[in-house]
Amino acid sequence: MKKIDVVEQILNHHSNRGPAKEFGQAFAPTNIALCKYWGKRNHEINLPITASLSMSLGDKGAHTLIREITAENDQIILNKQKINLTTDFGQRLGVYLDLFRPHPKQRYQIETEMNIPVAAGLASSACGFAALILALNDLYGWQLEPTALSILARLGSGSAARSLWQGFVEWRRGDAEDGMDSHGVLLPEQWPELRIGLHLLNKGQKPLSSREAMRRTVQTSRLYSAWPSQVEEDMNSLKQALAAKDFYHLGQVAEANALAMHATMMSAWPPVIYSQPETIAAMQVVWRVRAEGVNVFFTQDAGPNLKLLFLEANQAAIQSVFPDLQICRPLLPPHK
Amino acid sequence: MKKIDVVEQILNHHSNRGPAKEFGQAFAPTNIALCKYWGKRNHEINLPITASLSMSLGDKGAHTLIREITAENDQIILNKQKINLTTDFGQRLGVYLDLFRPHPKQRYQIETEMNIPVAAGLASSACGFAALILALNDLYGWQLEPTALSILARLGSGSAARSLWQGFVEWRRGDAEDGMDSHGVLLPEQWPELRIGLHLLNKGQKPLSSREAMRRTVQTSRLYSAWPSQVEEDMNSLKQALAAKDFYHLGQVAEANALAMHATMMSAWPPVIYSQPETIAAMQVVWRVRAEGVNVFFTQDAGPNLKLLFLEANQAAIQSVFPDLQICRPLLPPHK
Repeated sequence: MKKIDVVEQILNHHSNRGPAKEFGQAFAPTNIALCKYWGKRNHEINLPITASLSMSLGDKGAHTLIREITAENDQIILNKQKINLTTDFGQRLGVYLDLFRPHPKQRYQIETEMNIPVAAGLASSACGFAALILALNDLYGWQLEPTALSILARLGSGSAARSLWQGFVEWRRGDAEDGMDSHGVLLPEQWPELRIGLHLLNKGQKPLSSREAMRRTVQTSRLYSAWPSQVEEDMNSLKQALAAKDFYHLGQVAEANALAMHATMMSAWPPVIYSQPETIAAMQVVWRVRAEGVNVFFTQDAGPNLKLLFLEANQAAIQSVFPDLQICRPLLPPHK
Repeated sequence: MKKIDVVEQILNHHSNRGPAKEFGQAFAPTNIALCKYWGKRNHEINLPITASLSMSLGDKGAHTLIREITAENDQIILNKQKINLTTDFGQRLGVYLDLFRPHPKQRYQIETEMNIPVAAGLASSACGFAALILALNDLYGWQLEPTALSILARLGSGSAARSLWQGFVEWRRGDAEDGMDSHGVLLPEQWPELRIGLHLLNKGQKPLSSREAMRRTVQTSRLYSAWPSQVEEDMNSLKQALAAKDFYHLGQVAEANALAMHATMMSAWPPVIYSQPETIAAMQVVWRVRAEGVNVFFTQDAGPNLKLLFLEANQAAIQSVFPDLQICRPLLPPHK
């Protein structure tokens, strides 16, 4: 199963390939996983070993504008800076665009604005690929369902499958070999009082991509063998906590899940530790504040930053300890 | 099976209980595990879930002098300071001594000198209990074999079972319910060029005892389920590396094993992270130096300190990066 087969299947069955508009554009929020995606069962079409569950970050994400151009090469502009097409990122994007060009020589101009740090464990590729597929959907008037767009976004970056919605999203593992059942699903719960605080320790690029860290973990960590059963339990717990609006339970499971993911990396070889000294110091502050009775938890992705989870009512108390926190509130999904 | 049953079995079968000498005394080295002991299958008599393998630290350890006294209470003096018998440590020692008193009212004076920081993840309880049982063996003229003394030391602290010898020691897991096959065994290999450098980051007391961290990990970490198979593989690898004098292999397995142990703790709830910010910084230095071609690895126990592993030939290079390193060289076991 190749990526292009998945694309053909979706575009032929579910839509028409109309002529391009002048431009297509879209915004997609980034998402923070409360139960992490860590490990692929299929590297070609990004099928995960387990399910995962995320919360979208409202207005934090990527806005992308795409147009067809007549030129030798694609033009990719990220936060007003032209991307060199020979970089890993430029090549990855070019290969992804190949899946959608109406003819092989069609070139695109893509302008993306992201209001989160790029490639620092803040799911910039998640919102980036989600915004790109939404913009393509707009450009060509495909009118695809979010579920189909989620599958197409997944081909660019696994966690992009969860960035098609505001709110809580489950990325179902699926069983099918072609991955047609491995996509995001919007969960019904809303929780407007929930806050995520970005504690940015290091805005620099990651030393190791999450893609490579994931591969290395699955291949070399013995402890990884216990990860799927951890996820199964955590997914159930998170859904119960969401349904019951039990914040303590939600936070506890999210923090434990993130630490378990980092534990699988730490036991890989060579070891992968994304935490910096400042990360450990921040964890200790979270634990101290929690011991003092303020319900705050953290999650951590493939980078040194922590994302704090808390309720609106505790925002002031937490900001007094983490004054530089960038606070994100979930947007309500639009009513249908 | 109670501790006292184990003691009776050993003292009745293997020795005579003679009258006490004026005093008994002994030195026992501390030991650093290259494959860690992490998890008990029997908490009463300290039977481990897995085997482990250590290297003794030469002249770093505990020297203990014990004598019978006529007094209301035991007198315990550690590094010239009198220990309060109502502290956890005082009570733990009192309960251990109860196993050996010739009559219930017999009291002891115990003077111990340790040249390592106490309760900071440097196996102070390992050398402490090993020196104590050796001193009792001397006091009463039991003339027990090291294997029997290893079992008795284990009743005080699991890893003490490995502190009865200089050199490389395997603590066999054993299968027997009474633990008579769970004791240290001196391995034949010698490696006089091997060095362990103590990188002491924090000489303070641990916030959580290793005993409690171990219990919590086994009870709450899902990833722990994969630990026994990791140990089985690591024990085989370490023995191969020792036999082949393959330092790179030895160091790699020791570092990976320590990180995997800490990974199981990190995935416990509440999470246990002994690393301090300075620990992460030191790990990063080790990895940088290793990437530059100097063969140095670390291991870490239930505390924030790192213990660096290297060969004598690299000592100067490593000291230039870690100037405060306390360097330990193995002593050769005495010829029989």
